[in-house]
Amino acid sequence: MPHRSFPLHPAPAAGLSFTPGLPELRIGLLGLGTVGAGTLAVLRRNHHAIARRTGRHMVVTHVAARNVARAQALAGPDVQVLADAHAVATHPDVDVVVEAVGGTGPALDWVLAALASGKHVVTANKALLAEKGHLVFEAAERHGRVVAFEGAVAVSIPIIKSLREGLGGNRIEWLAGIINGTSNFILSAMRTQGLSFDAALAQAQALGYAEADPAFDIHGHDATHKLTLLAAVAFGMPLRHAQVHTEGIAALTAADSVCAQALGHRIKLLGIARRQPGGVELRVHPAMIPADHLLAQVEGSLNGILVQGDASGPTVHCGAGAGGEQTASAIVADLMDIARLGGHTALQAVPMLGVLPWATEHLPVLPMADVVCRHCLRIPTNTPGALLAPVLGCLHDCGLQTDVITPVPDAANAPGLLVLTRSATERAARQAVATIGALGNVSGPVVRIRVESLT
Amino acid sequence: MPHRSFPLHPAPAAGLSFTPGLPELRIGLLGLGTVGAGTLAVLRRNHHAIARRTGRHMVVTHVAARNVARAQALAGPDVQVLADAHAVATHPDVDVVVEAVGGTGPALDWVLAALASGKHVVTANKALLAEKGHLVFEAAERHGRVVAFEGAVAVSIPIIKSLREGLGGNRIEWLAGIINGTSNFILSAMRTQGLSFDAALAQAQALGYAEADPAFDIHGHDATHKLTLLAAVAFGMPLRHAQVHTEGIAALTAADSVCAQALGHRIKLLGIARRQPGGVELRVHPAMIPADHLLAQVEGSLNGILVQGDASGPTVHCGAGAGGEQTASAIVADLMDIARLGGHTALQAVPMLGVLPWATEHLPVLPMADVVCRHCLRIPTNTPGALLAPVLGCLHDCGLQTDVITPVPDAANAPGLLVLTRSATERAARQAVATIGALGNVSGPVVRIRVESLT
Repeated sequence: MPHRSFPLHPAPAAGLSFTPGLPELRIGLLGLGTVGAGTLAVLRRNHHAIARRTGRHMVVTHVAARNVARAQALAGPDVQVLADAHAVATHPDVDVVVEAVGGTGPALDWVLAALASGKHVVTANKALLAEKGHLVFEAAERHGRVVAFEGAVAVSIPIIKSLREGLGGNRIEWLAGIINGTSNFILSAMRTQGLSFDAALAQAQALGYAEADPAFDIHGHDATHKLTLLAAVAFGMPLRHAQVHTEGIAALTAADSVCAQALGHRIKLLGIARRQPGGVELRVHPAMIPADHLLAQVEGSLNGILVQGDASGPTVHCGAGAGGEQTASAIVADLMDIARLGGHTALQAVPMLGVLPWATEHLPVLPMADVVCRHCLRIPTNTPGALLAPVLGCLHDCGLQTDVITPVPDAANAPGLLVLTRSATERAARQAVATIGALGNVSGPVVRIRVESLT
Repeated sequence: MPHRSFPLHPAPAAGLSFTPGLPELRIGLLGLGTVGAGTLAVLRRNHHAIARRTGRHMVVTHVAARNVARAQALAGPDVQVLADAHAVATHPDVDVVVEAVGGTGPALDWVLAALASGKHVVTANKALLAEKGHLVFEAAERHGRVVAFEGAVAVSIPIIKSLREGLGGNRIEWLAGIINGTSNFILSAMRTQGLSFDAALAQAQALGYAEADPAFDIHGHDATHKLTLLAAVAFGMPLRHAQVHTEGIAALTAADSVCAQALGHRIKLLGIARRQPGGVELRVHPAMIPADHLLAQVEGSLNGILVQGDASGPTVHCGAGAGGEQTASAIVADLMDIARLGGHTALQAVPMLGVLPWATEHLPVLPMADVVCRHCLRIPTNTPGALLAPVLGCLHDCGLQTDVITPVPDAANAPGLLVLTRSATERAARQAVATIGALGNVSGPVVRIRVESLT
């Protein structure tokens, strides 16, 4: 590192009036929906502030949109709007392509075409990266370009940067995140208003927190995409989307919410990635967490992620998980990183997936059956007293120790027995559920919710 | 940005076995106390993980310590330990200097000497940077070197990076932080255990959360140093340490804590930086915040910072605020950033104080008397009923509107009247306190605590 003694950041020729004289970063924007329009709005509103931070003018020069006339009206006369996204993705006058189309179909082709044409790419498309990331990141490496994706996880929270850089000196032991705002809104409404799942979902839809077709969110798939990216970046491991154990929240009832509160807990849909001897756990499922834990206070549509580093200890990162400008906040930050790379310094870029490609650690994903945690069982029955002994017998036979066994507090609506076990494997807990379910006087399916202490 | 089509991150010659073949980053460590020893430990324990992320071997080659024998025993035979910190700071075989000495005396000389010798500097010394930062950052600019200071604020939380980079596309409207762990521990203990200030301080000292001389923490000076740095980075403004309004927590009593709870609030020592028309507010003082706000849940020695960006909305960042390895987490992250700069790319460095030096905005710090918030007054008296009318009269005369006026709930220990006003200037609130204090039947000083809604 030889010593150069000249100013680190020379002022532009025009001096303090920085509007002229700074080089441009020319952006091609694919899609002008919520995220695309939000990005355009933030880049324009904060144009000068961004120039003050980067020394570059960021200019959206090209937009691809299906409805050209509408997009042209929105983007204004200085932007060239085309219906042909491929043409924008490969346009010689574009330095960086922002993909705001979504999905894993044409978006993949356009991203690959942009990389092959020498563009850096910024995207918030978690489905694309979680499912097709091996193609995308390999192409980026081959072409010496960067694919940045801060907006793909917990949009307003700079969690990708925190894992890759700010906490990069740590060995990350585990992380647990509330990373689907729709599910969190529904669970919060169920708890605070005593709503059924269906009523809470309807409320979320009415308020714009859930899509008309909510399947992707409530069945955990969206959280699984995000967890795949978080785990890769935290552990320096490949994208293991297909191996994430995924459960959603659609089977939860108001009674489950009441039981959790009776045990001093709240139910959250968590994405958990945890190092263990021999591999990593990757799982998305509802979990009870202590009501006084900081993550339990992340309510409504907010996202929150706890990262446990070996040196840092726990850090918790909270913020909006969706929204046009909230996603734009991340996209613009990625553009600023790219602006700082300049033309000749891509070799110094932060590795896209956390570690340098040759250093990827091929950590196996551990079988879900081996995962250990506490379990809460809700056993529907009209005769809880009579079931006490047989249930304890089943638990004992399956090797489960019991911390709490008590009638369900919401007995009027959901009579039954409530059990809180000590730590046990998923395998043992499943066996206990099956055995107890086959007992006489059990009047419906046994509900099991995992209990995480987050320590 | 011309297109180069070759791998972004070529593997080292040795292939997957990366131990040989990677270039070194040679570190000179000034001080081997808690922070210095923590940094050495983390760099060694996570040596391979850091190499996987940066492509560099980080090696502490030199240590400066007063007790050379002790330091040599701790650092081991591969490290050259010297008593002469200046010699380490300027040593030709050192690339980066980590200053872990503390204070604003010799540390300043050594940092300046290191920069003049062409070293980058990493420091967690908030006092040095808040008070002498104009000298330090100017020298760094002049010599084309970087001074990195993630560890100077809320050590384990990558808040400097989040403000400068991850949220860098935002116009930051305001931020509010619990940035002194000692004070937060004391306030939490007062609330949860009903302790007096003195008893809570004694507990903090017994548990190692407060120094033997706690003045610097409990009087707000430490938080002021951190707020100075946060505001500079968030707003792109100069370091305005001397202009921060600073109050500590030493005057708070158990009765204040009880009153806050009765009003649905908790007391926190906050550092607040807020844009206003015409300038910024910079202030450190105790404040009541709503008990169900996420920041109110940041308890014990934890730190938490809320950042309000125009695009991101609110984000909250929590974690440890002190500790050797927790600080090392930040210092190593800074070293990783520097490792990625390489020798020839310092021009692309993220500006140390958020914006490029020529773009610094010389925002004036607004007078404290103009700050507007709600106010809580506790008026000691044995005849609250008789004081009601005169107090309301005083409030009215000073232009203050009243939301709540009620006897102090902890009347046995601290009989009095409790008042919660609507938003009013500091000037009006001070006048009200003075006027009420002069009333007959007021049996002690009127206590005023500002109330912040954090919206």
